[in-house]
Amino acid sequence: MTRRIHLGAFAFHPGGAHVTGWRHETARPDRHLTIGHYKHFAQTAERGVFDTIFLADGLYFWDRHPSGVDHYGQLRLEPLTLLSALAVHTSHIGLAATISTTYNEPYHVARSLASLDHLSRGRAAWNLVTSRYDEEARNFGGDHHLDHSRRYERGEEFVRTVEELWDSWDDDAFPADRQSGIFADRSRLHTADHRGEFFRVRGPLNIARPPQGYPVQFQAGGSPAGQQLAARTADAVFAGYRPLAEAQAFYAGLKQQVEDAGRDPEAFHILPTLQPVVGSTRSEAEDLAEQLLASTPDALIVEDVSHSIGQDLTGRSADEPFEFEPDTDTSNESRSPNRRADALRTGDHPATPRQVYARSFREGIVVGTAAEVADTIEERVETRAADGFIVQSLTLPYSLDRFVELVTPELQRRGLTPESYAPGTLRDRLGLERPARVVPA
Amino acid sequence: MTRRIHLGAFAFHPGGAHVTGWRHETARPDRHLTIGHYKHFAQTAERGVFDTIFLADGLYFWDRHPSGVDHYGQLRLEPLTLLSALAVHTSHIGLAATISTTYNEPYHVARSLASLDHLSRGRAAWNLVTSRYDEEARNFGGDHHLDHSRRYERGEEFVRTVEELWDSWDDDAFPADRQSGIFADRSRLHTADHRGEFFRVRGPLNIARPPQGYPVQFQAGGSPAGQQLAARTADAVFAGYRPLAEAQAFYAGLKQQVEDAGRDPEAFHILPTLQPVVGSTRSEAEDLAEQLLASTPDALIVEDVSHSIGQDLTGRSADEPFEFEPDTDTSNESRSPNRRADALRTGDHPATPRQVYARSFREGIVVGTAAEVADTIEERVETRAADGFIVQSLTLPYSLDRFVELVTPELQRRGLTPESYAPGTLRDRLGLERPARVVPA
Repeated sequence: MTRRIHLGAFAFHPGGAHVTGWRHETARPDRHLTIGHYKHFAQTAERGVFDTIFLADGLYFWDRHPSGVDHYGQLRLEPLTLLSALAVHTSHIGLAATISTTYNEPYHVARSLASLDHLSRGRAAWNLVTSRYDEEARNFGGDHHLDHSRRYERGEEFVRTVEELWDSWDDDAFPADRQSGIFADRSRLHTADHRGEFFRVRGPLNIARPPQGYPVQFQAGGSPAGQQLAARTADAVFAGYRPLAEAQAFYAGLKQQVEDAGRDPEAFHILPTLQPVVGSTRSEAEDLAEQLLASTPDALIVEDVSHSIGQDLTGRSADEPFEFEPDTDTSNESRSPNRRADALRTGDHPATPRQVYARSFREGIVVGTAAEVADTIEERVETRAADGFIVQSLTLPYSLDRFVELVTPELQRRGLTPESYAPGTLRDRLGLERPARVVPA
Repeated sequence: MTRRIHLGAFAFHPGGAHVTGWRHETARPDRHLTIGHYKHFAQTAERGVFDTIFLADGLYFWDRHPSGVDHYGQLRLEPLTLLSALAVHTSHIGLAATISTTYNEPYHVARSLASLDHLSRGRAAWNLVTSRYDEEARNFGGDHHLDHSRRYERGEEFVRTVEELWDSWDDDAFPADRQSGIFADRSRLHTADHRGEFFRVRGPLNIARPPQGYPVQFQAGGSPAGQQLAARTADAVFAGYRPLAEAQAFYAGLKQQVEDAGRDPEAFHILPTLQPVVGSTRSEAEDLAEQLLASTPDALIVEDVSHSIGQDLTGRSADEPFEFEPDTDTSNESRSPNRRADALRTGDHPATPRQVYARSFREGIVVGTAAEVADTIEERVETRAADGFIVQSLTLPYSLDRFVELVTPELQRRGLTPESYAPGTLRDRLGLERPARVVPA
């Protein structure tokens, strides 16, 4: 029996997942801050019957290296404002915003997500992150990023506080009866009065319970602490792309953690990223991959590799071999998954920055015809390495356009994805139960 | 010569400015959390060629008194998510969100407003508030509200920090040139590196300078500290409705403060609230006003008056006379303008809660035919008591529908408001210059 899979369409940078995807001949970097750019993205994903669109985010501009400013198309619209506008331009697809629990307040986040869920009639989701970089700390009064384990402790309390706020009102708390004058039924109000280690939030929320009960929660659970938090609180994780055997081990391990946490592993989706480079022929796809790789200027290659492996190579040529000195940095910045360092650990030495960069680029992508890409998807789902994928487009809008044109019909032919949307909320579509309000003890 | 006036359409509660406006026979309180409710509101205001819509907000649910829960239709969508969706449903009208500088972070607010300004192509505005109630403090880790003068000090530093972030990039900082690979011009980047008393924010912002330079800034400048802040930083104030002579004195005083602050008082708009109750005949309008007043249950009248005058009358009859003991409360909660206490100070004693409530209700509204309402508007503008108005609809959608049907044509006939929108941003429409980036010393 074929398993139905779940797909998300990821907008990592506005110009695509590849750092210089914005340089592709079809790209329109002048439109990155327009609604039109994202309207096309969201409507294309909806044409491809994706479960959700998924917006990356960061609370910083990456100016640590000059090449980040010069070459990296990282300007972006704020996700919640953008998704609200896209709710109007779409009818079925889920709307997932990346939100940091380190630099936000539960009351604001609970409200905004509830608002998006009401506006979209049950299509809101969030991708909980704890943020990664010192650059983010410095925009919020700090110098360095919060310690990794503290970030996850705060993240967990943040989720619980947000859920308590969503539960401020029973689903049927508002008769809003013009005759009697009763707007709210006081007996169905539950004041959170949350007093924890990180947050004191009284509530109640000034909006009704979201249509989905709780908007769907994604997490990028890479690290052990991230996996543990996801196993306890998330509906789905969005994991890095790994070699098949590793992906199966990750899948089995995380599902076990979900079960250990007393939850149903079948109602918890593991969705690795997939970066397809698809063509009408294999050689067309390979040409596109090479073209994208070649679009990255040398300075960006050297500085990207320097940052990724934690070893200063700046000022060197991209073609100068160097000795790899494994990362002993103990900073709290998260670098996982780190394909550059992996490429070095497993590759030939000495290597040049260009070789390291190219190898890690190629290991992260799936290149081929629609049938070949669909084979990879099917294999990984059938062999329990994935319940679906978060599809990263290397260059936008082109990569998603081609995916929906070529791969979507192939997936539908194989019965892996539906041909149209069934009615219901995003939660319904993902086969997740609507959470009941947690009855206080 | 007739002066062109500026109009904003205010959504105070989703059901209108009157606390039980949601009980009117035409109201649809079941639709308060739908985009359809606000789409109608925004498109009606746009049909009436209003300069902007204007959303009130509060970071709390008012449950201090039982009647607040029972009778007061205060559920609401979060303003920024709502306005982004409305940006798609409208083409010209400004989009103003109320935002608290006490419970937000400058980086988030700068980003979200810049995002809304890009999405709407130059129609974003904010109504800066410092928040009012202990209920809000308790949703953000505090017990009591911040001291009044500290709130305004924080508010001013907040505005400056947000403006520094908007100035992170020159307007022409992004060549985004696919050929050369240059996305951003490093020489046009200005890192804020703000280090003040309340905020440390490095920047730069990860979005281009807003189309308007700075989105338009409104303030509700009632108190002396509020007026001083508005005179230094705001583009427009939204003031309480006062008797004509008082309104003229307020207008002259505030314009003088603007001039004293070294700014052009003609490029600073004073827009009092106006609560029109309009009918085809005067008696139809009067009947509507009485009907709205009568829709407020006794418990809400008694508790509203108790709260407004700072004297506990709860449990009494709405028709029981009481002795007024003037407010000696020194709390930091803001109660200005306070029509209930004014009604008591100037009225006959002893009075009943119902009499106090009714008197303050009637003093806040303008009842009449379209010509009579237009006469009030024209008189106040011609005698320099106002540059226009923030029009509060007592019940939504009905009151705004009737205003646009009856009063708008009358204002247009008199040349007070335009018959259609000229091209340009909200700032253009308000006759405000686009701020140049402040050149650092």
